[in-house]
Amino acid sequence: MANLKKLFYPKSVAVIGASRNSQKIGNLIFKNLAESDFAGQLYPINPNTQEVLGQPALASVLDLSEPVDLAIIVVPAETVAKVLTEVGQSGTKVAIIISAGFAETGPAGQEKQEKLLEIGQKYHLKILGPNCLGVINPKIGLNASWGETMPKPGKIAFASQSGALAAPVIELVNESGLGFSYFASLGNKADIDETDLLEFFGQDKNTDIILTYLESFKNGPRLVSLAQKIASKKPIIVLKAGQTTQGAKSAQSHTASLATPERVGRGIFTQANIISANSVREIISLARLLTSLGKKQAGPKTAIVTNAGGPGVLATDAIVKNSLSLSCLGQKTVKRLGRILPASASLNNPVDILGDADEKIYFKTSKIILADPEVDNLIIILTKQRGTNVKAIASALVKLKTNKPIIPIFMGGKSILAAKEIFQKAGFTNFYHPQEAIIALAKIISWQKRSKKKITVNQIKINRGQINKLINQANRPRLNEAEGFRLLSACQVNTPKFVILDNQKEGITALEKIGCPAFLKVLSADLIHKTELGAIVKIDFKDDFPEQFNKMNQKFPSAKLILSQGITGGIELIIGVKKDPVLGRLIMIGAGGIYTEILKDSVFRILPIGKNDAREMISELKIHPILKGARGSQAINLEAVEETLLTIAKLAEAVPKINQLEINPLIAGSKSVAVDVKISLVQD
Amino acid sequence: MANLKKLFYPKSVAVIGASRNSQKIGNLIFKNLAESDFAGQLYPINPNTQEVLGQPALASVLDLSEPVDLAIIVVPAETVAKVLTEVGQSGTKVAIIISAGFAETGPAGQEKQEKLLEIGQKYHLKILGPNCLGVINPKIGLNASWGETMPKPGKIAFASQSGALAAPVIELVNESGLGFSYFASLGNKADIDETDLLEFFGQDKNTDIILTYLESFKNGPRLVSLAQKIASKKPIIVLKAGQTTQGAKSAQSHTASLATPERVGRGIFTQANIISANSVREIISLARLLTSLGKKQAGPKTAIVTNAGGPGVLATDAIVKNSLSLSCLGQKTVKRLGRILPASASLNNPVDILGDADEKIYFKTSKIILADPEVDNLIIILTKQRGTNVKAIASALVKLKTNKPIIPIFMGGKSILAAKEIFQKAGFTNFYHPQEAIIALAKIISWQKRSKKKITVNQIKINRGQINKLINQANRPRLNEAEGFRLLSACQVNTPKFVILDNQKEGITALEKIGCPAFLKVLSADLIHKTELGAIVKIDFKDDFPEQFNKMNQKFPSAKLILSQGITGGIELIIGVKKDPVLGRLIMIGAGGIYTEILKDSVFRILPIGKNDAREMISELKIHPILKGARGSQAINLEAVEETLLTIAKLAEAVPKINQLEINPLIAGSKSVAVDVKISLVQD
Repeated sequence: MANLKKLFYPKSVAVIGASRNSQKIGNLIFKNLAESDFAGQLYPINPNTQEVLGQPALASVLDLSEPVDLAIIVVPAETVAKVLTEVGQSGTKVAIIISAGFAETGPAGQEKQEKLLEIGQKYHLKILGPNCLGVINPKIGLNASWGETMPKPGKIAFASQSGALAAPVIELVNESGLGFSYFASLGNKADIDETDLLEFFGQDKNTDIILTYLESFKNGPRLVSLAQKIASKKPIIVLKAGQTTQGAKSAQSHTASLATPERVGRGIFTQANIISANSVREIISLARLLTSLGKKQAGPKTAIVTNAGGPGVLATDAIVKNSLSLSCLGQKTVKRLGRILPASASLNNPVDILGDADEKIYFKTSKIILADPEVDNLIIILTKQRGTNVKAIASALVKLKTNKPIIPIFMGGKSILAAKEIFQKAGFTNFYHPQEAIIALAKIISWQKRSKKKITVNQIKINRGQINKLINQANRPRLNEAEGFRLLSACQVNTPKFVILDNQKEGITALEKIGCPAFLKVLSADLIHKTELGAIVKIDFKDDFPEQFNKMNQKFPSAKLILSQGITGGIELIIGVKKDPVLGRLIMIGAGGIYTEILKDSVFRILPIGKNDAREMISELKIHPILKGARGSQAINLEAVEETLLTIAKLAEAVPKINQLEINPLIAGSKSVAVDVKISLVQD
Repeated sequence: MANLKKLFYPKSVAVIGASRNSQKIGNLIFKNLAESDFAGQLYPINPNTQEVLGQPALASVLDLSEPVDLAIIVVPAETVAKVLTEVGQSGTKVAIIISAGFAETGPAGQEKQEKLLEIGQKYHLKILGPNCLGVINPKIGLNASWGETMPKPGKIAFASQSGALAAPVIELVNESGLGFSYFASLGNKADIDETDLLEFFGQDKNTDIILTYLESFKNGPRLVSLAQKIASKKPIIVLKAGQTTQGAKSAQSHTASLATPERVGRGIFTQANIISANSVREIISLARLLTSLGKKQAGPKTAIVTNAGGPGVLATDAIVKNSLSLSCLGQKTVKRLGRILPASASLNNPVDILGDADEKIYFKTSKIILADPEVDNLIIILTKQRGTNVKAIASALVKLKTNKPIIPIFMGGKSILAAKEIFQKAGFTNFYHPQEAIIALAKIISWQKRSKKKITVNQIKINRGQINKLINQANRPRLNEAEGFRLLSACQVNTPKFVILDNQKEGITALEKIGCPAFLKVLSADLIHKTELGAIVKIDFKDDFPEQFNKMNQKFPSAKLILSQGITGGIELIIGVKKDPVLGRLIMIGAGGIYTEILKDSVFRILPIGKNDAREMISELKIHPILKGARGSQAINLEAVEETLLTIAKLAEAVPKINQLEINPLIAGSKSVAVDVKISLVQD
């Protein structure tokens, strides 16, 4: 954190590779620093020149009398390691590596990049980049980047994994009347990543809103735990690119990013209470609306005032589609509206004040509606019709006094620019299209709501010793069915009754105990497609058993067989745990059976999860209505599902030896039963 | 059509209700007509005034020496019928009723509106409105509306069910450099509706693109058959509001619209090859991109040139999410690119030409890529970076000669306005955000592709006489199971074997013939929830039959029982036919079982449908991959499903006596079997 303070508030900066050649980035960066209002010391470092922009150049940072706060490296890739070492030796604690030619170029570049990290670690030197644009702090006039524009100062911090996206985002945000506290280009994220910046921005008093453009995650668990805390105070917006396989592939050659499937990303954003944006336009909509709301609390119940029926209908559709609701206006409100509105106006929400509505009608209608306790937010729509005085109406509306969010949607082009500016000056923000405003509003409401939720913990207890003992007894990379069942049983997860059979006679006795239907399977940790291989058979009737047993025995003469209870009724689910190289341990619950892939119905979280997370995961399943007993189907014991999910989560946390675990299916009914489980172990 | 010609090209216009009071719409309309370039005759009609804007007023249209081409009525609702009658008597054949206060106000208004329609029919007088803004024809300077602005002339026809949406749409389209052939406000659509305008715009040589904003459909079958024909030549874009129940409710009080569920609307748009837009912004994106493409054919294989990695990744995501594909550039192309691009450029698609790319690099790269046969369209992305000469690059790119679509995406704000204008002048259109361009492109590709498809017919033959005989024999409003099965069998639709039982003994004989499992049910057309009432029981074993029969007999002593074959295996589907008040007869196929509602997996079409429609309906099902045999499940005989669907479609067409029909489930396996069917008949 101290290092990051120096990244954004350096008192002295050395540019290694500062150049006199105006075509070179080393010149651009030095020029940006020299020509901005930045008041700190600047040192051009270049062994091949006497001076840069009138300042005497030094051959190396080692020639400085004392270490600078920030070193910026803009030399060819092959020289970076050498100068970085010198930076470390000089005692400087943070460096920006602008130079490209590292992990984004492939394995050789990746190796070079790892070398840089080693140097950094050796000298306790934090590194931003390589392959980045630099940082900007408009407040102190610091443009330590090769970007062209100095953004207007403001309250938005922006961390971008693409340097080139900085220009349009900064321009569009500035043109919306908003400004930046910081900009930082993340590049390849060899060392400093989004979580470091998040931590800094989260504690920073000059930052109200955090924007990020990411092509990959670096450290999932840290992202989640940090973001959860920060998001309770300020919003974090992420635009995640590389959601599709091909998009991820392009990201790989751009900033050496590892892919995270969209479904997994969605789970992380929910868990971390990060607002996920789908486009640059949406980033900007969110920043604008968040700024205009300030500390105001938005809610789902939304009222609409409009002088145009059509846009009122479009807004209504958008409200319902985004899980908000139309306020049901109180009788008193409707009566009061009736007194001021013409007879043909529509007094119910959306309140249509007709095409000839003037500033008085707009103001009075809005005031009456805002007073209704059934209204959480007010959307005010205008299209310019004959005689509509756009400026007068905007000027009247900004005088509304309320602690409820107001969103003007004045639709059109140049004819409403004047209103847009009036709104902007008064701290409102105008949207041109109802859908865009409402999508942003819905996301903000969800963030505000979640930011008030307590973070719960997982209180399940696992007998670690017993589990490890079972694992050691099994002594193989993958557990077989019996070992898996025993392990789950040791965690109080229900499993079917089972018996390992040595001969047919044992089977008959076992079947009498277990009952029909039952499954006769080859006991094996390694046989994957048992159904396809005929290594599993259902026994519906006791009389069928001997024949089936003999068949199986002939087919797999050297294999042990296992007989397990068939569980009937209930709904099939999947619970799984796996390790992801950047996200850490992920837990998943999904719909089972043939619909798994069709429904794409799975919900992910990063471990650890708490009780609230588990409940939320289940409620996010598309089949949740079925689990709750929709369409006359019997309701499932959801608490049992929740408990199983939390148990598996705790098991994975408590026993690092477990590499991957999949219960498929978990049959959920009046209780939950893990009918099949695959567990693989971490190999030493 | 002749009447519509007079609506848009009148030689003489009477404004009934033309007023001297500048606050009144009757004044605004007359002023619009008088002050525009319209060269035809104008007559103010108002019994209470001598002149309007210097023109002598007449008391009634009956005072005119000859009928005008177009009468515009702007009098209070209660006087409309009277003046409309006079218009009819005068011999005028088309009228616009601007006045509100009809169906949109409720049942009394609806009655008043029907009266107008009667008057129109009596005098062969076509009516636009009531409750509308009027029409505009910029080419002849006709502003027969109370809208403020005269749009710039051009090739886009716009029909809007909301008058108030006209202003922003016209302004935004004009600001994009495009113009209008016609604008018409549909209002309550008492008489002239979207299909009439569609027919006119479709045949009109001045119109290349048809835009519509609709809150409801008026005549589904005509819309489909007309649009199918027109869409083979020019695109039809519809923004449909009122998709949600609440949105439809607001539309009801706005233009008296009847709701059409979103799923049904989607089916109609596909069937009619209408491009469905989701927002006003999308309407405009589509109009812009369609205009810039002209006759160029777009295709799925898309190449990207970009000076910025991040936006390239975002564009890639959008391409994949919208079912387009990244062009796989040929070796030759990659080699040629390698010769002109720097070493660190990315030569594969998306082609990253790096931040310092100039106009020469942009031009040459684009030219090379366009020559690759694997490229259907080219997206050219730019963000303004240090030294990027936006104007020079745009000027270079518009010189590219190709018959492939080129879409520039120059991202930013004011800094790229100059480029936007260069593109606009050269017939290109710039997008600010990759996603918006790609969504529009994908919709246009789908329209182009479908516009080349032949319209197929349904060649199934139905024995009408036999079906009607069966219906007459049944002689009740709803057919019972046996009657339903017989009717389907007569159409060659597979049904289970069944026997109607008079006594237990018959049942045992029947069961021997039918086999187990079988179902024993109460034979009744009126008992709806048979499962819940215990009026249906599964017979798994022959021995269980006598007991089950007796139980059922005791429970329903006066009912006849039916024993039917249980069909096992296969996948459950639903096929249904119903009547919709505006859409006519709809046919539906959907996923069956408990997932029906969760998957919301149903596809609708308006009858008649052809072979291609049936195939397409099945392929649009979310469970289509399962039907095709995904995940190791057995493939279903899809031709059998298709044939059943076409048979039911033909049955509904051929036998108008059938009001509603639902096969649920249709069990689809190696053949398709209708396991249960409910048929209700039209009551005379």
